[in-house]
Amino acid sequence: MSGLPQPRMEPVDGLPTRVRVYEVAPRDGLQAETDILPTAVKAELCRRLYEAGSRDLEVTSFVPATWIPQFADAERLVAGLDVPTGARAVGLVPNLRGLHRAIDAGVREVSVVVSASESFARANLNTSREGAVERAEEVVAAATAAGVPVRGYVSMAFGDPWEGAVDPATVVEAAARLHRAGCSTVAVSDTIGVGTPGLTTRVVRDVLAAGIPVEAVALHLHDTYGQGLANVYAALSLGVAEFDSSVGGLGRCPYAKGATGNLATEDLVWMLHGLGIETGLDLGALAATTAWLARVRGVAAPSNVATALAAAASAVDTPSTAGAGR
Amino acid sequence: MSGLPQPRMEPVDGLPTRVRVYEVAPRDGLQAETDILPTAVKAELCRRLYEAGSRDLEVTSFVPATWIPQFADAERLVAGLDVPTGARAVGLVPNLRGLHRAIDAGVREVSVVVSASESFARANLNTSREGAVERAEEVVAAATAAGVPVRGYVSMAFGDPWEGAVDPATVVEAAARLHRAGCSTVAVSDTIGVGTPGLTTRVVRDVLAAGIPVEAVALHLHDTYGQGLANVYAALSLGVAEFDSSVGGLGRCPYAKGATGNLATEDLVWMLHGLGIETGLDLGALAATTAWLARVRGVAAPSNVATALAAAASAVDTPSTAGAGR
Repeated sequence: MSGLPQPRMEPVDGLPTRVRVYEVAPRDGLQAETDILPTAVKAELCRRLYEAGSRDLEVTSFVPATWIPQFADAERLVAGLDVPTGARAVGLVPNLRGLHRAIDAGVREVSVVVSASESFARANLNTSREGAVERAEEVVAAATAAGVPVRGYVSMAFGDPWEGAVDPATVVEAAARLHRAGCSTVAVSDTIGVGTPGLTTRVVRDVLAAGIPVEAVALHLHDTYGQGLANVYAALSLGVAEFDSSVGGLGRCPYAKGATGNLATEDLVWMLHGLGIETGLDLGALAATTAWLARVRGVAAPSNVATALAAAASAVDTPSTAGAGR
Repeated sequence: MSGLPQPRMEPVDGLPTRVRVYEVAPRDGLQAETDILPTAVKAELCRRLYEAGSRDLEVTSFVPATWIPQFADAERLVAGLDVPTGARAVGLVPNLRGLHRAIDAGVREVSVVVSASESFARANLNTSREGAVERAEEVVAAATAAGVPVRGYVSMAFGDPWEGAVDPATVVEAAARLHRAGCSTVAVSDTIGVGTPGLTTRVVRDVLAAGIPVEAVALHLHDTYGQGLANVYAALSLGVAEFDSSVGGLGRCPYAKGATGNLATEDLVWMLHGLGIETGLDLGALAATTAWLARVRGVAAPSNVATALAAAASAVDTPSTAGAGR
């Protein structure tokens, strides 16, 4: 065997043949990390991701710098990006003011966040659950008038660290309002990673039953409890063909110190390519990006695949000791 | 929310209602770790696992101490175990001599290992692929004559670090010979964790098509590439209801330095309980066992669930900073 290991391809009937991997490392990943990266490093991260085949990239957030210092450089970062033809550079906007900043900066697609739980809306969005939806509807209306597509997130859709269980009916209601308002995609988000394939199946089915077409549904999954890929597999069998992920698993879980956060892009792509599902992504280039960023930051990445690929080349040359392993 | 988080239960039609979780931490887990634990610590590990509800426990290996120093205390460990009524204490045996040692020590169930690849048979079992099967057949015959059930492992069934791809036909052949020889269970093993749900589906279907009943099939999965739980979910939908795992994810991957090894019991149980599948295991007691062993060894455990549960209690009391997370 030479070169990096690649997954063996064995398709399963009834799954999508192509999946859109929506890369969130530069925004959601960095937001949860405590070290503030220089703008040049963020730009290089985006450049490497586009080069690895990413076409769907959330690059920054137009929140006030007093809220999240990591994104104080949003305008500068966007100004320096070289977005390939056919690729997207999406900016998160918390409100109308953020939308105007994003448009002024040259961003041509934005994302908004609402909450399925009251507690998260209060703690993280500084409003009520209803207030967050109304604010999002305002942003979608203004963005649509400006010809800017909007991706809508429903946070805490699988559970909430303060409230515990979240009623799927509140998820469906929030998702339906974002869809009706005109969001091009509704991303149902397991913000704290508590979902299993059963809950994923339930929530996705309920969302589809509310009349949101499967092409307009994405999942944003976290790997806090190790369930991310099993949930992706369950959702694939329901036809969902768009998933968020973060290269290297960048992004901690702010609600569980030391725990894993975002689903790692490499782990997701290993599974998808193994299922014969096209992504347009180069697994080796993704892992190299993770290795580069880990060197720059001095922090190891949690991605299983990135770790295994980094180790594989040398380990294959040094066979194990004998002795009835398995 | 008070107490430890628990997965929300949402069953999926068509899956088994009960799963046997075969715990391998004391044997396969410790075999891959480099620190040698005192016999008293191993005994305490087994005691805690039985107390957490484990009924299916592989406790040691009757290999020569010159092969694996970790198991030089096999007889002493077994002599000191207090196995609850209805529970198993299984010992791995590499050959007839190991079987006799195990029986003399009072073990009433054993496991044997064959290889789906020629390279692993040579490097790890000190024989050819065919030689390993013949040796296993000898052991099964002698064990059966002594009234001792045998669990048969087919290693490297999803890929091999030297050869790369492994032909499912060789997996099926080895599994069928173990089954015909009289093994009570055949455990198909993704020793290096390269499988995806597609390959899992393919291999399990081929094994079932060869006439091995699903009740006699188990899967031994590693999480090296993060695919373990997704593969379990795929196998559940084919009716497989027995999975190996290791508490805390104990056990490195000897073929990829720094990479994750055995599927963590807590991660598996979180998914199964979330699917409403009974295991008889207490998730909190498992996580407490992992925390105890990590303290004793001075090594953090890779289990996502163990990490998240350890962090959850304190994190819930300290809500995040504001700012459009998801």
